Parts: sequence; C-alpha cells; structure tokens
Amino acid sequence: MLEQLRREVLEANLALPAHGLVTFTWGNVSGIDREQGLVVIKPSGVPYEELTAEKMVVVDMAGRVVEGNYKPSSDTPTHLVLYQAFGKIGGIVHTHSPWATSWAQAGMNLPAYGTTHADYFYGEIPCTRAMTEEEIRGEYEYETGNVIVETFRSRAVDPNQVPGVFVHCHAPFAWGKDPHTAVHNAVVLEEVSKIAARMRSLNPEVQPMEQTLLDRHYLRKHGASAYYGQ
Amino acid sequence: MLEQLRREVLEANLALPAHGLVTFTWGNVSGIDREQGLVVIKPSGVPYEELTAEKMVVVDMAGRVVEGNYKPSSDTPTHLVLYQAFGKIGGIVHTHSPWATSWAQAGMNLPAYGTTHADYFYGEIPCTRAMTEEEIRGEYEYETGNVIVETFRSRAVDPNQVPGVFVHCHAPFAWGKDPHTAVHNAVVLEEVSKIAARMRSLNPEVQPMEQTLLDRHYLRKHGASAYYGQ
Amino acid sequence: MLEQLRREVLEANLALPAHGLVTFTWGNVSGIDREQGLVVIKPSGVPYEELTAEKMVVVDMAGRVVEGNYKPSSDTPTHLVLYQAFGKIGGIVHTHSPWATSWAQAGMNLPAYGTTHADYFYGEIPCTRAMTEEEIRGEYEYETGNVIVETFRSRAVDPNQVPGVFVHCHAPFAWGKDPHTAVHNAVVLEEVSKIAARMRSLNPEVQPMEQTLLDRHYLRKHGASAYYGQ
Amino acid sequence: MLEQLRREVLEANLALPAHGLVTFTWGNVSGIDREQGLVVIKPSGVPYEELTAEKMVVVDMAGRVVEGNYKPSSDTPTHLVLYQAFGKIGGIVHTHSPWATSWAQAGMNLPAYGTTHADYFYGEIPCTRAMTEEEIRGEYEYETGNVIVETFRSRAVDPNQVPGVFVHCHAPFAWGKDPHTAVHNAVVLEEVSKIAARMRSLNPEVQPMEQTLLDRHYLRKHGASAYYGQ
Repeated sequence: MLEQLRREVLEANLALPAHGLVTFTWGNVSGIDREQGLVVIKPSGVPYEELTAEKMVVVDMAGRVVEGNYKPSSDTPTHLVLYQAFGKIGGIVHTHSPWATSWAQAGMNLPAYGTTHADYFYGEIPCTRAMTEEEIRGEYEYETGNVIVETFRSRAVDPNQVPGVFVHCHAPFAWGKDPHTAVHNAVVLEEVSKIAARMRSLNPEVQPMEQTLLDRHYLRKHGASAYYGQ
Repeated sequence: MLEQLRREVLEANLALPAHGLVTFTWGNVSGIDREQGLVVIKPSGVPYEELTAEKMVVVDMAGRVVEGNYKPSSDTPTHLVLYQAFGKIGGIVHTHSPWATSWAQAGMNLPAYGTTHADYFYGEIPCTRAMTEEEIRGEYEYETGNVIVETFRSRAVDPNQVPGVFVHCHAPFAWGKDPHTAVHNAVVLEEVSKIAARMRSLNPEVQPMEQTLLDRHYLRKHGASAYYGQ
Repeated sequence: MLEQLRREVLEANLALPAHGLVTFTWGNVSGIDREQGLVVIKPSGVPYEELTAEKMVVVDMAGRVVEGNYKPSSDTPTHLVLYQAFGKIGGIVHTHSPWATSWAQAGMNLPAYGTTHADYFYGEIPCTRAMTEEEIRGEYEYETGNVIVETFRSRAVDPNQVPGVFVHCHAPFAWGKDPHTAVHNAVVLEEVSKIAARMRSLNPEVQPMEQTLLDRHYLRKHGASAYYGQ
Repeated sequence: MLEQLRREVLEANLALPAHGLVTFTWGNVSGIDREQGLVVIKPSGVPYEELTAEKMVVVDMAGRVVEGNYKPSSDTPTHLVLYQAFGKIGGIVHTHSPWATSWAQAGMNLPAYGTTHADYFYGEIPCTRAMTEEEIRGEYEYETGNVIVETFRSRAVDPNQVPGVFVHCHAPFAWGKDPHTAVHNAVVLEEVSKIAARMRSLNPEVQPMEQTLLDRHYLRKHGASAYYGQ
C-alpha cells in the first residue's frame, strides 16, 4: 500500500545525507496520506544505505503500525502531533543538522535577517520553550510535538508560512506540502542558520530586516501573486 | 542565435554549483553581446542539472524575450541595469554564496585587508544602502540594479576595478569582461569574504592594507604594467 | 592470530579518514581480546592507504609485540593503561580531529548542552589537567593514560557512560565496547565539539542542559530501558 | 634535465589542490638541486589541471631561465632568497590557504598552543613585519623573501625547526627538506591555524603550551632522539 508515498519518503530520507544534513542515522522524514489518514515514516535505527521503500513503516494517526516489518522511528509521536495540528502539511523532517542545532542549543529564535531567509520563511523561525520535567518524564516524543504546536499557536505563527522550528536544547524540525519540500526547507533552515550565525559574528548589532523587504521576497515566491523562480 | 554566448553562459552557470557557490537554484549568470544589444541569461527556476544551452533565454535591453521557451531569470532587470550603466562588463553573476551573504546581511563594506583581495578588487567591496519602501514595492529587481549603480557612482568606484558588490540584506553580485570571468570574481568574492570574517574574529582591530601594497598587487595583474601570470 | 579482531581494527582505522577525523597519519585505533589479554593496534607511521589486516600489530598488556613486522603505534602505552583501568571497553581511538582538538587546547570541559551530546555521553566530557614536567619527561605516553584515568576517577565519571576525553593541550581519545563503536563515539565527540563551539559563539551565557532531559535522552538509548533508534 | 626533481615538483604542485590549499592558480611549489644550484618551479598562471613535468621551469640562483618554455612563477625571486638564506631546505610552498591567510592578514604570530603544532613546528610561527613603501615599490617579490629572512634572523628562529611563516597582509610560505615535505608542512600550517583560531574563540585567555611539552613532542619526532610515528 501507499507505494508512491513510500518512494517519496524513501527519496526524501536519502536526500538528508546527500545534503550533508545528517551524521549516522540522526534524522528521519515522513509523509502523510491525508485521505487515508496514514503516515509513512523511516524505520528506527536503520542506516541510510540500507533503506528501501519496502522498509518504510506505515502507521495510523494513533501510531499503530499498519504495515511494515520494522519499528517506526522513535520520533513518530512528534510527527503525528504535527500532522494533527498543522492540517496542510504533507511531509516532516527531523535532523540534528549542525548549524540549526547550534541555534536550538542556544535557545534562540532566528529573526529574518535577509532575503535568503525571506524567500522561504515568512518571519522569525521560533525556538520552543524548554520542556518541563513532567513533559520530559512523560510521553516525551509526544510532548515534543505539543511544545512545537504551542509555540506556533501562542505566537500566532502560521506553520505554512514558517515551515520549521528549533526545539530547545535539541534540534530542528522542518516540514512542507510533501516530503520533498520538507527536506528542501530543512536545507534552507540549515543554510540560513549558518549565514545568520556568521553575520552576527561580523556585526552583533544587526536588526531584523525591514517588513517591506520580507513581504516582497516571501510573496514573490509564495501565494497568489508569486512570480519568482531564479 | 548567439550559440557561442549561450554555451559560455551555460558553462558559467554550471560552474556555480561546481565552485560550491549555490544551493538549489539560488544563482544565475548572464552574458551580453554588446554589438547586437542582446543578453543571454539562465531561465527561471530550472535546476542546474537540467540546464542546456538551448534552455538559455535571449532578451533585449528592454527585457523582452527574443528567443527561448522559458521565462528568463526573475533577476533579469537587475542584470540589464548593470549592463546599461557599466559599459565594459560582459558577464554578471548573482548568488547567495554564504560568506558573501553574511557580509550583505551585516550591511558592511569589505575593506581590502590583504593581497588575495588586492589581486582582484582594487579597493573596498561596497555594500549598498538599504532600499526604500518605494523601491521595494515598485519595480524591485530593476531598483536593485539602480541601487548598485548609485553605490558605485556616489562613491566614485570604478566597477571595472571593483567587480562585485553586496546588496544590503540580500546577497552579492559580481561581474567581469565575460561570463567566465564574472564567475571567477564571484569565487574570489566568497573567498575574501571568508578570510576577512575569520581575520576579524582573530583581531577585530585590523586596519585596511596599505595603499602601496594594494596598488602593487592589483597593478601587477591588471592594466598596462601587468606582469603576473603568463 | 586474532584474524577477526585484526579486520575490525583495520576497518576502524580506515573509518577515521572516511569520517574526516584525521589528516595524514594523525590517528590510531586499537581493539582488545580480553580473554587472551592481547591488543591489536595500528602500526606506527604507516599511511592509511597502505594499511592491511596483516600490518596490524599484536601486543600483550605489557606492550611487548607478540605478532607483527611493524612497530606498534607510539601511543600504545596510553591505550594499554586505558584497557587496564577501564575494564569493559573493547576499542580505543586517538585522533587530532580539529574541533575536539580546539577544546583540548582550550583546556575546557565540554558540558552537555543538548540532546545530540546526551544521546551518547551521559554528562560533561572532561578535559584532563595539564601534565607535570615529570610526567612529560618520563614515560610520557604511559603517563598520558594515567592522567586520563585520574580524571575519570577523581571526578567519579563512569568511562562507560562518558566514552571520551580531551587531553589538555593535546587532543581527544574516545572508546567503546569494540573498535567500531569507539570510532562512532569519536565522530560524535567531534560533532558535539563543533555544535557547542558555534552555540557558545551565538550565546555565551548558555547553561548546561537540564538533568532530566540528559537522563531521558541517554537512558532511552542505553541500558535496560533503552527503546531508541532513529 | 633534472627529470626526477621536475616530477617531484609537479607532484607537490598537484598536491596543493588535492589538500584543499588553493583556489584557481593561487599557489606554487619549487624544489632545489643544491649541487647544480638550480631551482625547478611552477610556471606562472598555468591551471593545475594543465601542469606537466615538462612545463616546470628551471632557473638558476639569479633567476635566469635555464630550461622551459614558460615564464616561471612571479614569486620566483622570493623562493630564491629563501633558498640562499636557508641553506638546508629543499622545497618551498606558497599558498593563500584560507586559515593561514587569515592569520597573515591579522598580522599575528601563531604561538604553539598544542601538540599538533609541536609535532611539526618547534615554537611560534612568526608573522613578518609590514613591508615598507620602498620594499613594495621596489623589487617586491625579492623583498618579500628578504623580510622573511629578516624575521627569522632577528628573532633567532631556526627555519629548519619552524618551517613556515605568515607574510604580513599577504599569505603563508612553508618549506621542508624536499618539495613533498614542504607541502606536508603547508597542510599542517593550515590545520594548526584553523585549530588555534577556533580555540581562541572558545577561550581567548589561553596561554602558549609549556616548553617541556613542546620539547617532548617536537623532539620525539625530529632529531637524534626521535622515536615517533603514529
């Protein structure tokens, strides 16, 4: 079942090491079939070079394995919470890509400082609050999803316009309309994390970019008035 | 038409990922035939691995497509303004190469700090002023060209001697006598941006290099008295 | 003799340049056969591309060559002290991997700042004290082992839970249950050294992560309650 | 003539891009035949991929071309001064490798901070003084050699024990007993420049390493009592 989505999820997972986003097995991508309410996700602990479409695991929205001989990624509960709360996203990526992870460990939001950021993220990329002892000791991976959702809701950020987040003391998640786009956004997240860190080292006083320029760049690539390729 | 220039522009575009200057499609190169008043430029949004000489787009100086089945790069109006104003340049490159983009986001000019810089850029590489709301909301890509031209004219910098610029909050443009040289200068711009950023981290008090040393290095490679290379 | 262990040690040594951890011959891996009390280690000064299983050197716990035509790595006495003192480890790696070496030269312990660290190291990665003149002038490589052991004992750190160390003014050592795992931990040590250094540059005020989060991440991957792959 | 030395110089030149030390043609290696008083050096401005042993240029100690159809590297006078003054060296490398160039532009000496440095450089790697206007306007490449020699003589540094230097506002030179060793030292110079820069960012207060440790590491690899491979 879900042969096409399995292939997309496989390719998206394989794109992670190709883009230099993961060391060892430190990352996973999933994709969702909204009609059937099923999620395809990377199996737990399998090296990238051994992944095949058949090894992908299909789970339902409660996290039960519907098809597959492997255990789904341990981060599956986080993915499921995000699919539930962010109703338009079709793919999710989790990595420990090093520049983004530095921002997550620093506990800092990444403001929009330039057009590279603005071309993909319509404003600041948030960092979640630290999780509570109860959340960590409880259903940790599920609560990780909840704290991401809380971050977007409490700050009124649209996850379709800001397709990524830093989880405090942990690492980034990114998403998109499908698994391929989710990986694309994860690459951009790493790139803007790098550029902004170096920029701050050059000039610690830099302020976020003007809203007008942010609007122009984001809206020329996204939405009804988009006109931009490159 | 313009078969030779199409091939040069294709090769120059393909050199961008080969030199590590671009992620995804974030860059474009053009070349001009001054006699015919025609510019060959990368099509919009086509991945580098799918580019061919045939897919390059030919536009006239008003930006009208003269030949080609694709839309020209959305940055075409910026290129055209630069070709109009800088009458001796034959190729232009735009990238979001990460070190140069950090300088652009920092809003900082890059003084000549060493001979690597002096071998290619005869003085400070300028960063433009921030664009106004009117410019951003108006013909943005055209105005991007205008603010670059203003930067060189208002500071009396010769674009043939300083073949690159940081656009504020955005990214670099570089140019040269032909598309190949423009890419060469874009590589140097990235390299000197990297070296200078690390140098400032080692020693924030460093002053620009002596004018005599700048003269020596630039002039041994450029102009009537050049003796460097074969 | 020890054909299987020789192959494991060979492969682990070859993994060092593959993971970008070594320049030239700056690294070595060993493995131990606890039953026979024999250690297999890289020969001294042989380039990685010329290594074969046959060239690996077998030494006893006193450092005497039992089999092999080459001199064992000059760091052999350090390895032997660690095998004696840390009774459960099966493989040891020494490199001058650049980020970890920067921490070693800085003379700084690396606190657990995030989950990437917590997934493999159950707390701060220690830096040894500076060695004394007597230690340096005496049996230097043997004393290097002793100062590592002293570091773990005096701070009551379990080397099975913190499988790596920075030797002051020198470079890292890492270990694991076998040579392959030791290399894996050396890769993680380099990665968390990089992430933490960049994090500190972004935000010098960051405190170590919460103990609860450290527990959760370490214990979901190690020990009786482990459930995590990725 | 000098077929063997031509091949050595060719291979050493080709090793520069292989080790990531050069961009474009920014580097050159030479080797000397002390008996004949002849130097083999890279031709000026020829891309690395087009170099052959036949294209290497043979010059005498006065810089006259003895054999070869190309112009010798413009830096030839610098090489010749060093061969004259440093009587035991057999090969010289000049690059603009980025980390070392950052130290050169910063105008800073690089103290011995750790054992990676001590394994190859017996003490601080010096940065020359700024060159005078007269030196720059005069026989600039020749004077570059002179300021290097002055640096070593005035500080009583032995060029055989400290086989490299930063030329102020310019870039590094390194040398060794033959062209291959010179390139080896240039790689180490770049690596220790990187490690020390990052170390200073972690801990700006770090002092140079103890003399005893410097002695131990340098002398276990060099001189009559050497015993170290790795």
